[in-house]
Amino acid sequence: MKLNMNDLIIKKRDGGKLTKEEIRAFVSGYTQGEIPDYQASALLMAIFFRHMDDEETLALTEAMKNSGDTVDLSTIKGIKVDKHSTGGVGDKLTLIVGPLAASCGVPIAKMSGRGLGFTGGTVDKLESIPGFNTTLEPEDFYRQVNEIGIALIGQSGHIAPADKKIYALRDVTGTVENLSLIASSIMSKKLAAGSDAILLDVKCGEGAFMETEEDAAALAEIMCRIGTGAGKRTVAMVTDMNQPLGYAVGNALEVIEAIETLKGRGPADIENLSLTLAGMMIYLGGKAGTPGEGRMIAEHALRSGVALAKLRTLIARQGGNPDVIDDYDLFGTAKKAVEVRSEYTGYVQLIEAREIGRASQSTGAGRAEKDDPIDFNAGILLARKVGDRVRKGDLLATCYSADAAKAKAAAKAVDDAILIGKEKPAEQVLIKRTIGA
Amino acid sequence: MKLNMNDLIIKKRDGGKLTKEEIRAFVSGYTQGEIPDYQASALLMAIFFRHMDDEETLALTEAMKNSGDTVDLSTIKGIKVDKHSTGGVGDKLTLIVGPLAASCGVPIAKMSGRGLGFTGGTVDKLESIPGFNTTLEPEDFYRQVNEIGIALIGQSGHIAPADKKIYALRDVTGTVENLSLIASSIMSKKLAAGSDAILLDVKCGEGAFMETEEDAAALAEIMCRIGTGAGKRTVAMVTDMNQPLGYAVGNALEVIEAIETLKGRGPADIENLSLTLAGMMIYLGGKAGTPGEGRMIAEHALRSGVALAKLRTLIARQGGNPDVIDDYDLFGTAKKAVEVRSEYTGYVQLIEAREIGRASQSTGAGRAEKDDPIDFNAGILLARKVGDRVRKGDLLATCYSADAAKAKAAAKAVDDAILIGKEKPAEQVLIKRTIGA
Repeated sequence: MKLNMNDLIIKKRDGGKLTKEEIRAFVSGYTQGEIPDYQASALLMAIFFRHMDDEETLALTEAMKNSGDTVDLSTIKGIKVDKHSTGGVGDKLTLIVGPLAASCGVPIAKMSGRGLGFTGGTVDKLESIPGFNTTLEPEDFYRQVNEIGIALIGQSGHIAPADKKIYALRDVTGTVENLSLIASSIMSKKLAAGSDAILLDVKCGEGAFMETEEDAAALAEIMCRIGTGAGKRTVAMVTDMNQPLGYAVGNALEVIEAIETLKGRGPADIENLSLTLAGMMIYLGGKAGTPGEGRMIAEHALRSGVALAKLRTLIARQGGNPDVIDDYDLFGTAKKAVEVRSEYTGYVQLIEAREIGRASQSTGAGRAEKDDPIDFNAGILLARKVGDRVRKGDLLATCYSADAAKAKAAAKAVDDAILIGKEKPAEQVLIKRTIGA
Repeated sequence: MKLNMNDLIIKKRDGGKLTKEEIRAFVSGYTQGEIPDYQASALLMAIFFRHMDDEETLALTEAMKNSGDTVDLSTIKGIKVDKHSTGGVGDKLTLIVGPLAASCGVPIAKMSGRGLGFTGGTVDKLESIPGFNTTLEPEDFYRQVNEIGIALIGQSGHIAPADKKIYALRDVTGTVENLSLIASSIMSKKLAAGSDAILLDVKCGEGAFMETEEDAAALAEIMCRIGTGAGKRTVAMVTDMNQPLGYAVGNALEVIEAIETLKGRGPADIENLSLTLAGMMIYLGGKAGTPGEGRMIAEHALRSGVALAKLRTLIARQGGNPDVIDDYDLFGTAKKAVEVRSEYTGYVQLIEAREIGRASQSTGAGRAEKDDPIDFNAGILLARKVGDRVRKGDLLATCYSADAAKAKAAAKAVDDAILIGKEKPAEQVLIKRTIGA
């Protein structure tokens, strides 16, 4: 269809509902460069104010999905379940939940992104394992999932290019913070990735994109409706990100914590959330009758060591050195380590996740620009969590970097981000809500 | 100042107030091409939804005014009064009011635009007078006003280039219809034109940009506040544009009607409005103690013939043939004339101004594109006004064009635009409100 963009902008500006055909024509026209940026940004700002309903949001999602390659996982047997996290500080859950669910018979054919911001993404974390190859040809990717039940690779460049272009525009035109636009951006990539069911881990809190539980739940609900509208079983969990997940923030540091968790020695919050998410995936994958039963199955896989064995198989199959599981020195070590010690006696009240994320980025563990190199051994290792008792002089965290000045600056920032107080703070609930189960 | 445009967009999007410095930096950055169109259009859409207050609107107006040349009329003696109309169908008032006010001692140093749309602008109308030159060097312009009290020329290309660029963007991004943006666009050019006082004729009705009296009054009030804020005495009149002004719509046709009015034989609506506007200008120019006294002085100038003599002097001084005043054949004539006759007996209920304007444009009297030529002799000459009694077969209008098919098509459109009914319609009020006097 031939689109009069000015009329379309005015229609949305005045509260009208865009048709599926109009949304498709906008997405394809913009992706192909026929619609200029200045009209696209005006439309996005009108959408910011007037919102989109579910039909419009689904149409936008599907149009962006269809702007590029879509992955066909049909040669993989079983119900393929994807998991997506909206991004948190210290979130290494894919490395734990993937092997857990795979070891329970749920095929995991997962494409992840690189990180831009606080820490590396899942792909960066995997690449901190010496030799690990995150680039597989599609045929090898499918074959590996059929043979060992899991493959974790990087996202191809041709997934949802419309989303990429629209997101880049939103990022510089004050049009990021709209639930429909956020949801369609995430879901267009998830739908293109080809799984049969989707589990969304939507973070809320000071270290997350959505600060309040209500906003996170609203986003989760829209994403579930998009997923369901596109014919995929979709469940979302709203989880806390008021402090980093676990103790490790970085790349190799987080892989080590993931391995520890699969050895049954992980931090309580990480183990708990991993088992719940894996349980939900096992349920969605048809390997358990209820999420609760799924969690019991996952717990058994953890305690018995089959999930750890699955990680070992995965690392070896993708060219990595599986001996890292037994010898963490094989990851290498950061040259400099600076400790942060408590100046007070009391209880940890708050560990500002966003500030810890920024500090980790500044050690070299995260990128500021798309093509920046990552220092796999840099990062922050917390020694305490919120609610822990500390005495003056106790270790709070260690900051690792190749650069002494960076490690020192990070230590200062981490010190500022950890608040000690007299009273023991209230217990924090990690999993706030489950939507769509 | 160095501007983070994304932050600025978000500030306005979230209801914040932009500072004078931010607005200046935006206008100069955008005019100089440092700020891309896509950020400017997003900001304009945020302004559409969040509005601007008087301080922001004045800052935008002054920044756009200062983006280009500003005219210095200080070498002209007396209080220079400018008049601006927001554009109507058949609006030839400058040609009448200018000589009227000038003949009463108010210096008129007026720059007008060319038309784009329904009919030509004042400059096009003037150029329908054989030999009339609308381009004067500044020194000649000032000298002429000092010597004969009036000069009417075309707008220079360097007046408010920021407004030109911003308006062009608004026109294609659904961001035209915002009172602050409309007002600042008009007023930036008026302020740059250098007069001491400004009289605004804000049209309302079906043939005007503002359809309702309330919207027109709101626009008029913002413009008055901008003018006053910039230190200029500013008065606005909200006037009716539910039917064309007078009977003539075109270029030479309108000049002839203007001359007829200055001869004391003009249509009642034109004469009435001209005297009121001229009276207000005479008052603003300090030549009368009240607008009412100004009107009486203007009426004397009309009846005594001094205003017509002023027009004759003006035409001769700017190179035109003043004999057109006595011999309208010197304007030339259109090759084709098609009459529109009434199919009914009754009263004229409605003459849709917008449709008459479109019909006039289609005869060749107006431009569709910026560089289209204008046929000075084309246009529409109405034979009846709203409220007039007509019998079946009576002449309603004549359509003139160089092209028979165009004249015929225009006649069809004019016929459709004139509604005849049984009852005599209520009397229409031409001058609805006066603001700022």
